Amino acid sequence: MRIHFFEVDLETTGETDILDITGLAQDRVLKSAIENGSMVAFISGSTAALTTTEYEPGVVNDLRRAIDRIAPRDIGYEHDRRWGDGNGYAHVRASLLGPSLVVPVRNQRLLLGTWQQIVLIDFDNRPRTRRVLIQVMGE
Amino acid sequence: MRIHFFEVDLETTGETDILDITGLAQDRVLKSAIENGSMVAFISGSTAALTTTEYEPGVVNDLRRAIDRIAPRDIGYEHDRRWGDGNGYAHVRASLLGPSLVVPVRNQRLLLGTWQQIVLIDFDNRPRTRRVLIQVMGE
Amino acid sequence: MRIHFFEVDLETTGETDILDITGLAQDRVLKSAIENGSMVAFISGSTAALTTTEYEPGVVNDLRRAIDRIAPRDIGYEHDRRWGDGNGYAHVRASLLGPSLVVPVRNQRLLLGTWQQIVLIDFDNRPRTRRVLIQVMGE
Repeated sequence: MRIHFFEVDLETTGETDILDITGLAQDRVLKSAIENGSMVAFISGSTAALTTTEYEPGVVNDLRRAIDRIAPRDIGYEHDRRWGDGNGYAHVRASLLGPSLVVPVRNQRLLLGTWQQIVLIDFDNRPRTRRVLIQVMGE
Repeated sequence: MRIHFFEVDLETTGETDILDITGLAQDRVLKSAIENGSMVAFISGSTAALTTTEYEPGVVNDLRRAIDRIAPRDIGYEHDRRWGDGNGYAHVRASLLGPSLVVPVRNQRLLLGTWQQIVLIDFDNRPRTRRVLIQVMGE
Repeated sequence: MRIHFFEVDLETTGETDILDITGLAQDRVLKSAIENGSMVAFISGSTAALTTTEYEPGVVNDLRRAIDRIAPRDIGYEHDRRWGDGNGYAHVRASLLGPSLVVPVRNQRLLLGTWQQIVLIDFDNRPRTRRVLIQVMGE
């Protein structure tokens, strides 16, 4: 059993930017040379999240609208009143979706569905450089 | 440290069908003969999700209603306008709940609470055959 | 590759009590003496959840309010009509947020962001003693 770490830095536009990171995750699985095991993806930071979705513009926009309804941007957040950051909504959204994801790996392939991509969602109110941690564990 | 994979195919009715998969997950933990470690459950596909809940009809119905409120079925989805699938709501729901779950295993038992079951939720708008991946890692 | 288990019992006030458990998780990582790997945190029980957030009072209150909007307390739950527990809302909330979290560990440190803390959220309608499982796996 071995374990490999990768750090991937990504530029986002913020504002609920949704990026497909499947290709870079699969690339790190290949680089690890681990045949069978699992891949943990983790986003460091409290205003972004990871999940999976069908990465086509319709679903991506639908997901963005759903998140806007669940934690609207302009309803007044205590975080903003205390700190003036203006990104209180982003914190709430990130906590609801969560920062970690585990995907099984078999024969060096992430076992995703055909229409299932791994996405990083950056909720912050400005462009950010985000560091995604990709950990591959197995044999 | 060893790793075991299992694939379990399940028939669902779709329409936010909520299935208790605790028994089959525990069964695969026993089959793996791994004493201590963790179980990763993953659902391949972008219109279903995994979580835990108390699996009694009241909670199951309450959960279904909560999801209906969070991402209503008939508010118009861009995915449906582009592709005519009619399951735009299902994609959004699946992304919000997430496809992966990790449960620690000790002495060959999933360390769930007494009233805590693992559930597969199929949001799609038709019956599906779903493949759940169960991975047990440990020693 | 080794694996270590820790069980941590915590007193909560219930009522969407949000507790920072980062320090105790990091402490168990150090105790495990595992240099590189991952930490799985899991909450046994169906009325509590784990996620990450910036643990400052503003964000904590904003998160509590968001959850109150998503699954309001007093809209009538079938679980309560069947069992009289009065915590139907707590079950729904816990299922939506999820019981498990994975954080990579490198050089004996949880790779969280600077403003990102691990939190246990207890949704139940009364004070509880909660058992959090911390599992550290790696080498």
